[in-house]
Amino acid sequence: MVREISAAIEEGALAFLYRQYKTLAWFVVIVAIILGVFLEPRGLVAIAYLVGTFCSAGAGYIGMRVGLKANCRTVAGVMRSLNSGLRIAFNSGTVMGICVVSLGLVGLSVIYFVFQGWGAGIVDIIVGFSAGASSIALFARVGGGIFTKAADVGSDLVGKVEAGIPEDDPRNPAVIADNVGDNVGDIAGMGADLFESYVSAIVATFTVAIAAGIAFDSHLALLPFVIAGTGIICSIIGTFFVRVGEQLKMEALLMALRRGIWVSSILVAIASYLAVRFMNLDIGIFYSILAGLVAGILIGLSIEYYTSYSYKPTRSVSEASQTGTGTLIIRGFSTGMLSTVAPVVFVVIAVLVAYEFAGLYGVAITAVGMLSTLGITLATDAYGPVADNAGGIAEQAHLPAEVREKTDALDAMGNTTAATGKGFAIGSAALTALGLTAAFGGRMEVLGQPLTMSLLDPRVICGILIGCLLVFLFSALTMNAVGRAAMLVVNEVRRQWHEIKGIMTGEAKPDYARCVDITTKAALKEMILPSLMAIVVPVAVGMIPFLGPEALGGLLIGALSCGFLLAVTMANAGGAWDNAKKYIESGHLGGKGSQQHKAAVVGDTVGDPFKDTSGPSLNILIKLMATVSLLCAPMF
Amino acid sequence: MVREISAAIEEGALAFLYRQYKTLAWFVVIVAIILGVFLEPRGLVAIAYLVGTFCSAGAGYIGMRVGLKANCRTVAGVMRSLNSGLRIAFNSGTVMGICVVSLGLVGLSVIYFVFQGWGAGIVDIIVGFSAGASSIALFARVGGGIFTKAADVGSDLVGKVEAGIPEDDPRNPAVIADNVGDNVGDIAGMGADLFESYVSAIVATFTVAIAAGIAFDSHLALLPFVIAGTGIICSIIGTFFVRVGEQLKMEALLMALRRGIWVSSILVAIASYLAVRFMNLDIGIFYSILAGLVAGILIGLSIEYYTSYSYKPTRSVSEASQTGTGTLIIRGFSTGMLSTVAPVVFVVIAVLVAYEFAGLYGVAITAVGMLSTLGITLATDAYGPVADNAGGIAEQAHLPAEVREKTDALDAMGNTTAATGKGFAIGSAALTALGLTAAFGGRMEVLGQPLTMSLLDPRVICGILIGCLLVFLFSALTMNAVGRAAMLVVNEVRRQWHEIKGIMTGEAKPDYARCVDITTKAALKEMILPSLMAIVVPVAVGMIPFLGPEALGGLLIGALSCGFLLAVTMANAGGAWDNAKKYIESGHLGGKGSQQHKAAVVGDTVGDPFKDTSGPSLNILIKLMATVSLLCAPMF
Repeated sequence: MVREISAAIEEGALAFLYRQYKTLAWFVVIVAIILGVFLEPRGLVAIAYLVGTFCSAGAGYIGMRVGLKANCRTVAGVMRSLNSGLRIAFNSGTVMGICVVSLGLVGLSVIYFVFQGWGAGIVDIIVGFSAGASSIALFARVGGGIFTKAADVGSDLVGKVEAGIPEDDPRNPAVIADNVGDNVGDIAGMGADLFESYVSAIVATFTVAIAAGIAFDSHLALLPFVIAGTGIICSIIGTFFVRVGEQLKMEALLMALRRGIWVSSILVAIASYLAVRFMNLDIGIFYSILAGLVAGILIGLSIEYYTSYSYKPTRSVSEASQTGTGTLIIRGFSTGMLSTVAPVVFVVIAVLVAYEFAGLYGVAITAVGMLSTLGITLATDAYGPVADNAGGIAEQAHLPAEVREKTDALDAMGNTTAATGKGFAIGSAALTALGLTAAFGGRMEVLGQPLTMSLLDPRVICGILIGCLLVFLFSALTMNAVGRAAMLVVNEVRRQWHEIKGIMTGEAKPDYARCVDITTKAALKEMILPSLMAIVVPVAVGMIPFLGPEALGGLLIGALSCGFLLAVTMANAGGAWDNAKKYIESGHLGGKGSQQHKAAVVGDTVGDPFKDTSGPSLNILIKLMATVSLLCAPMF
Repeated sequence: MVREISAAIEEGALAFLYRQYKTLAWFVVIVAIILGVFLEPRGLVAIAYLVGTFCSAGAGYIGMRVGLKANCRTVAGVMRSLNSGLRIAFNSGTVMGICVVSLGLVGLSVIYFVFQGWGAGIVDIIVGFSAGASSIALFARVGGGIFTKAADVGSDLVGKVEAGIPEDDPRNPAVIADNVGDNVGDIAGMGADLFESYVSAIVATFTVAIAAGIAFDSHLALLPFVIAGTGIICSIIGTFFVRVGEQLKMEALLMALRRGIWVSSILVAIASYLAVRFMNLDIGIFYSILAGLVAGILIGLSIEYYTSYSYKPTRSVSEASQTGTGTLIIRGFSTGMLSTVAPVVFVVIAVLVAYEFAGLYGVAITAVGMLSTLGITLATDAYGPVADNAGGIAEQAHLPAEVREKTDALDAMGNTTAATGKGFAIGSAALTALGLTAAFGGRMEVLGQPLTMSLLDPRVICGILIGCLLVFLFSALTMNAVGRAAMLVVNEVRRQWHEIKGIMTGEAKPDYARCVDITTKAALKEMILPSLMAIVVPVAVGMIPFLGPEALGGLLIGALSCGFLLAVTMANAGGAWDNAKKYIESGHLGGKGSQQHKAAVVGDTVGDPFKDTSGPSLNILIKLMATVSLLCAPMF
């Protein structure tokens, strides 16, 4: 039974991925031809772009494959013991994390070594690789994000709310689609997202170095590669420290996991110091790397504080349910907004420290520093959806209640560990986009068209306004896309219940595959407009005479600032609503079924597209727009 | 009975205003002393600041006085005929509009003529006046906004939701507080807000002209005063065209009102052309004024499109209620975000046109152009709360149902006319803040410390991030303030129902005054932190060594961009939820009492602090921070 369900999930998830890649193939080919025609060195940028798309797609594919296998193995593990389930979930997360970062570094290094003979052109080629990775990442995040939430919201609306059957009930035709969504959205989407951050951060630093007149094979230009490589090794060493005895409690494993991250971070810090010394570079660069590393950890802690129900903010959201749904929504939203203070302050301090000690190069390398421990943090982040899926499978397979209890416990811990991963994703997106914008400015200077990007120039201000606008527009489009796709799911489920007799009594099986199919089509259709916008608008702004590259610089910074804040707000408001609901479900404030619980369920529904579709897509949006600008710089 | 109720409202509203002004007196005196000590010309800036605070307080007071009188007169008018009620409401709006703008222009002109002998110092003195107006406006908007929504949400939660009694029911002890709130929030707050926009726009243009090396009595420096004065005359002429025959329908009056605005706008356009020609100025300046005027009208139309239930966006929010509260909230929020496209595009086009034809001076004067018809647009905007209050009084006085029906009809029309006013408030805030930032840059240059404010300078980017952060933080703080103050209202109402026997049977009268008193205290306490933040943070950023005036420039632009977008989102999401509810109440999608209606009521509750507290306060926030920076420029 477990095997059967997980086979259905696997089939659906892979079908989505294949169809997504098929849809994207057209886009990729067209872009590659455009790049081949317009950008020097002719053809090579296009090839690097293609390699980038393949690597990014590969990162998503590997992540998903590992995740899918981990789902049912975790169920099997939990049936033996809680610890065994935990181990399996974490180990698969580790495999995925290390694979993704290795693929990024190897891809970049291969491109670098193959094309290093091209002198100055190497920058365009490397940026082409990064653009390939970014564009696939955006489509994957947006498409996967729409899929997962359309299936989730749709199946909940028609199942939990209308028919009153529990979550993950096999009588709900959308239940497999919901599970597929967790894989394609949370796992494949996240893999592609962080792969892209990782690559972009290295590329941004490399480009800033080259733009400053440094040779492409100098130590300064190679340092980001070295730090990234060191980071992978330190991450692997860190994972050894996550091992724990057989008799462990959840808290102990959480501590063990944290210990792994701490060990990796300290090792990276030491290794970075040695690398900077060994390569005869300014010690200020080490401070920059350290600033990024520390900022990443602190942002993760702040997200945990705001979204875990062990602390005041999320509890106050729960308590707001006592005066109704309206106050709960307001409270969650304002909590999300308040939670932006810490991440912004940490990023600002990291940037100021880096700039003080190592100039623009320092600013760019803070992102590399933050992402250096990605191998292990991604492992903790991937754990959440694996545990979530394992629970879904256990429910559908009618496994004993104690198995479901254990998977629920695993799931709850996933919410805590996810905060760390989210912190890295959001913080690194802001820093990477900043580095890429600096690289864009540097590129334009190298290309003989230096930009001032002064705020006294109304074109720059208009650019900033347009950048902020894109963030709002993108969020609105992705949220509406979820709503529309969810309605299709609702209608299909209603149709099946109406036409296929005996589903409710368990005599007939619903047509799960059709729900997956409908959601796939809807998600792929809906992902196109917002994603294309992210690519076309920056290029258009850069080319329109009244705006031009000055306005484009403004656009990037506007999108970065506004997008960073909104991404944090959406992620944390969504997280706070989700956990406020879980807090009530754990027996507080009236518990499950009370008016308070109903209010919290509405809050969670609002939070779903916030935290799993629009919010995380904003991370890629701001990086992709900067990468596209950097790539197209020679055209302006 | 009508007289009695309106006397109670008047008493409460004036008590709030007096206490607010008393609280602010301390603040004003301290700031005046600081300004007197630190800024040249010593003492005079402080005097101008004091005059500015008096004028701003006066504008709020006049607005409220006129509004309070209009409330009960409108009820009396409606008892005669619908038209008579409409006329009274509009006429009092007109009186208020013309008074507010005249006070602004007269105050500025007096300051100008009295102190013109001070040469270059005149700029500091005029900016001091503007800072006085802005700081009172922010406190008034924030304090009034918290009061009105705390009373509204609190009385609804405990009355409509808990006890199941209708809105404006006299058995609800918070009902008078609710009515007081409409006056102190919507009328006094709005009067102070637009007074401040009007003054700041003129001051920004004047300062940009002086910073460009123009003499303070040259035509370029005086043009904003001339345009503003012409605008008042054109507004007055426009009001004559609002007259209609006795037999009119609502649509006819709406058309008549629009005709008034159109006539005023065309007259202002002609007058501006003549003024520019007569003063021998570049014709490009006329185009800039025209761009502002047109942008203001178009933004108003776009807001109407997004928030009126005659059009698709708000209807789609209503329809989302069919799948529950969650989807309705998401849909309203995404509608608000989508609705930012038109305002941003119009502002960007206006800015680019103005800059192309008349440089930074042109950008600054677009705001003056947009606000030139403020006299008549403010009249339409003030109409809404007057109609709303008239309805409240009619309900409490147990007037016949047909009177209440008529006041409801008046109220519904107010939602349409308010869109125009909101468009001007938001659009002009963005343009004014832009002009003020340009003036800040110019001032720093005159002071011998020219800024580059380049986006390649990480301090500027950090400034932008901090500016965006302030917008989010300010919104979160004001939203939470409403929640906290509303809880106090809820508790007080519960206490009265518990302790004063016979309220529910009508045998005893609730203690209305105590509810007003509690809300007043809470609102005054809650307004301090967010408002002070808006004043202290820019000054601190300008003085911190690692940030400094370059970062401050970034802060202003970040706050402007992010604040503009968020203000539009909040205003329109709130408006869409409000009218989606009204659409359902008018008998669609199940009508009053249905599940859909309940979902829409929650949406409206969420929208209340969005559209009446945080959103409008953001307008002042971005202007005030720019004015404070301009004022403190000599300190950096």
